[in-house]
Amino acid sequence: MKKLFAEFFGTYWLVFGGCGSALFAAGFPDLGIGFAGVALAFGLTVLTMAYAVGHISGGHFNPAVSFGLWAGGRFSAKELLSYIVSQCLGAIAAAGTLFFILSGKEGFAIDNTKAGAFATNGYDAFSPDGYSMIAAFTAEFVLTLFFLLVILGATDKLANGKFAGVAIGLALTLIHLISIPITNTSVNPARSTSQAIFAQGESLSQLWLFWLAPILGAIVGGLIYKNLLQKEE
Amino acid sequence: MKKLFAEFFGTYWLVFGGCGSALFAAGFPDLGIGFAGVALAFGLTVLTMAYAVGHISGGHFNPAVSFGLWAGGRFSAKELLSYIVSQCLGAIAAAGTLFFILSGKEGFAIDNTKAGAFATNGYDAFSPDGYSMIAAFTAEFVLTLFFLLVILGATDKLANGKFAGVAIGLALTLIHLISIPITNTSVNPARSTSQAIFAQGESLSQLWLFWLAPILGAIVGGLIYKNLLQKEE
Amino acid sequence: MKKLFAEFFGTYWLVFGGCGSALFAAGFPDLGIGFAGVALAFGLTVLTMAYAVGHISGGHFNPAVSFGLWAGGRFSAKELLSYIVSQCLGAIAAAGTLFFILSGKEGFAIDNTKAGAFATNGYDAFSPDGYSMIAAFTAEFVLTLFFLLVILGATDKLANGKFAGVAIGLALTLIHLISIPITNTSVNPARSTSQAIFAQGESLSQLWLFWLAPILGAIVGGLIYKNLLQKEE
Amino acid sequence: MKKLFAEFFGTYWLVFGGCGSALFAAGFPDLGIGFAGVALAFGLTVLTMAYAVGHISGGHFNPAVSFGLWAGGRFSAKELLSYIVSQCLGAIAAAGTLFFILSGKEGFAIDNTKAGAFATNGYDAFSPDGYSMIAAFTAEFVLTLFFLLVILGATDKLANGKFAGVAIGLALTLIHLISIPITNTSVNPARSTSQAIFAQGESLSQLWLFWLAPILGAIVGGLIYKNLLQKEE
Repeated sequence: MKKLFAEFFGTYWLVFGGCGSALFAAGFPDLGIGFAGVALAFGLTVLTMAYAVGHISGGHFNPAVSFGLWAGGRFSAKELLSYIVSQCLGAIAAAGTLFFILSGKEGFAIDNTKAGAFATNGYDAFSPDGYSMIAAFTAEFVLTLFFLLVILGATDKLANGKFAGVAIGLALTLIHLISIPITNTSVNPARSTSQAIFAQGESLSQLWLFWLAPILGAIVGGLIYKNLLQKEE
Repeated sequence: MKKLFAEFFGTYWLVFGGCGSALFAAGFPDLGIGFAGVALAFGLTVLTMAYAVGHISGGHFNPAVSFGLWAGGRFSAKELLSYIVSQCLGAIAAAGTLFFILSGKEGFAIDNTKAGAFATNGYDAFSPDGYSMIAAFTAEFVLTLFFLLVILGATDKLANGKFAGVAIGLALTLIHLISIPITNTSVNPARSTSQAIFAQGESLSQLWLFWLAPILGAIVGGLIYKNLLQKEE
Repeated sequence: MKKLFAEFFGTYWLVFGGCGSALFAAGFPDLGIGFAGVALAFGLTVLTMAYAVGHISGGHFNPAVSFGLWAGGRFSAKELLSYIVSQCLGAIAAAGTLFFILSGKEGFAIDNTKAGAFATNGYDAFSPDGYSMIAAFTAEFVLTLFFLLVILGATDKLANGKFAGVAIGLALTLIHLISIPITNTSVNPARSTSQAIFAQGESLSQLWLFWLAPILGAIVGGLIYKNLLQKEE
Repeated sequence: MKKLFAEFFGTYWLVFGGCGSALFAAGFPDLGIGFAGVALAFGLTVLTMAYAVGHISGGHFNPAVSFGLWAGGRFSAKELLSYIVSQCLGAIAAAGTLFFILSGKEGFAIDNTKAGAFATNGYDAFSPDGYSMIAAFTAEFVLTLFFLLVILGATDKLANGKFAGVAIGLALTLIHLISIPITNTSVNPARSTSQAIFAQGESLSQLWLFWLAPILGAIVGGLIYKNLLQKEE
């Protein structure tokens, strides 16, 4: 049960911090933090929670990561569902809190005809820079694949494992530095789902891609690490 | 006594570095560091002092953190008052130094009718982006709550404790990346008090929120960690 | 063989992340990550992969680094060729993926008459800020020389080796913070080659410099560390 | 002798990387790294070299640091002069290399009537934001004082010493985030001297402050740490 609380709070923090920094601070006139600040925020949510609750739940905070760890032989299939439910509930609670805080600013409304509204993910007309569905799928697939290589490698028994939280958190920063213009960056189905639930419209219709591409990428990443990279003990 | 000196110097550095970067460098034309630079500065004050004097005092530098550690069962009630007094004195000394340096620039004056003057915290008309009192309270409460989850988790006996200074410092960076537009970010009553003393006006009338919300959030964070997350040994 | 896969995937990530962040996100209107974001991205590719696969291959991801480690007495000449081939193949595969994703944006085309097109390196008219061939050579030589001092020093048996991945990754960030305006920053012949193959034109004619200067700098760095700095055991 | 080479190369890297990032990349149109990028660069020069050659010379790279370590009882007076000479020679060699590379850009000339020309330090009309001599002295004094508290604390036998390179490097980043607008940030007499030698003019007349204030601050910092903070063993 403590594991599931850890996943709940960790994913809450990921969405509250990552999407929150995008919604509150990215576009502030002159002084805003821009995409680089949002990228840093997403990474730091994972870095901070990895050191805080990683010893409790392993620190996934992301359904694709849970799938990839399973494919890599590090996580049991029977825990998959309860982890994913906890992650989605944490994400939705965070999105609700963000919505409540934003409502405290006069004139707040989500304009879901625009790309990236309420920090949603999207492709085609809902990609921040107009990338196609195929380009978006490729980017999410490749980025989640490499995210899992970093996660599995940095937590390998033969690796310098104490730094895993730094490497994994900053890998998420790197992933956002690359791909916010393409899909507003997901690599995390829970984070996409929580924002789409509040934004509605096209972000719900496009949500399938942000479950399918990250989970497929994560599984392929898990298999590559296990079969091509992992050393025999 | 060395503990109280450590808290004094640590909180001085937090205010001098965090508020100082905001006052001197955030809005410099074209080359200024913006909110992201200020967020980094606040986090680095804690990261650097945690490694410098953490072994002396535990490295709180923040009355809300002292309260939260007490609620989490890691700090004794009888040290609470002396820690908080040292923190406030350090913060006020730093604000005085900032005031003195700023006075060395021609035409310097604090215009306390504007949000964020002298790096003060505020809500409603004194929120940098016009957030209401309820939104400001919610943000300060949630952010301090999670700050304590990171602090208590990263310093847990079962955690990878050598990285606590990195995780806690960068958690403060993350908190600022999210919330400077909402309240100019406090999560630290000492930091709010020192700036309000010099700025006067509304920042003093609104100061109550920046004691109440962070301390309540910290206490709830301490209780959540202790009861829902902490593993039995 | 696992070593060569590790070098392939590591160099793929370096090019995909470093050049990708430049191509997708650097110049996005208002919110783009700029040179500082690209510098962070390049460094994080190495930091993340050093912790992920460093225990497998040593984590070179760069032909100049392999040469410099050989000159410093840490890598055998007989592995040099296979490492470099793996690195170049990884870089080219990444450049191909970047090209494919970019093609999913309407109107995409590489204008190879402009400095830095498709994240290529160059000098004279192909230097982002118009630096001469001699200046470009000097910068690439000095920067790679110091990159090797950091690599050899941080992985010295007498050093605090667990932090090598942090120091080396952030050294690459630093190198980019300094020199993107000069040559668009190479210090890595594989990264220059992969981009030149897709961009063609002058970037191919100028490619010699981005093999010669980094490799010479790396060899001199290796010799300096071994002869002037390394302590006897 | 290896110690002196380490100080030479370390200080070369500090000036080449820190001042170089300011000269080449800070003000590049639209994509430039700004003060925050320069702050990061200065910090990373120290972080990277601390892990690379810290085990050889202790990693001072700064005459004020050598003085402060002496005042704190960690460095012998008889090594002071040779360290400072090595540091100054390294800084001057780096400034010469920067001058040579800049000469490879058409129309390059140092306009020493402007604040911050060739990355020099200054006050009054030569402060980037017009701060007075007293304000500049105060800032340099306080910042170097705290720099030494971080250095002495993070390398204390009772501290978590493996992180000292991270804490000290990022302390220098923090110092620059605060104070570039005040004095263009020195806290390092070698770095001020090398730039003034090439820029000439007022930067030479004002150089005294950038020896006096940092060294006094460092000595006071050393004494404070030793007498008020350091625990008996």
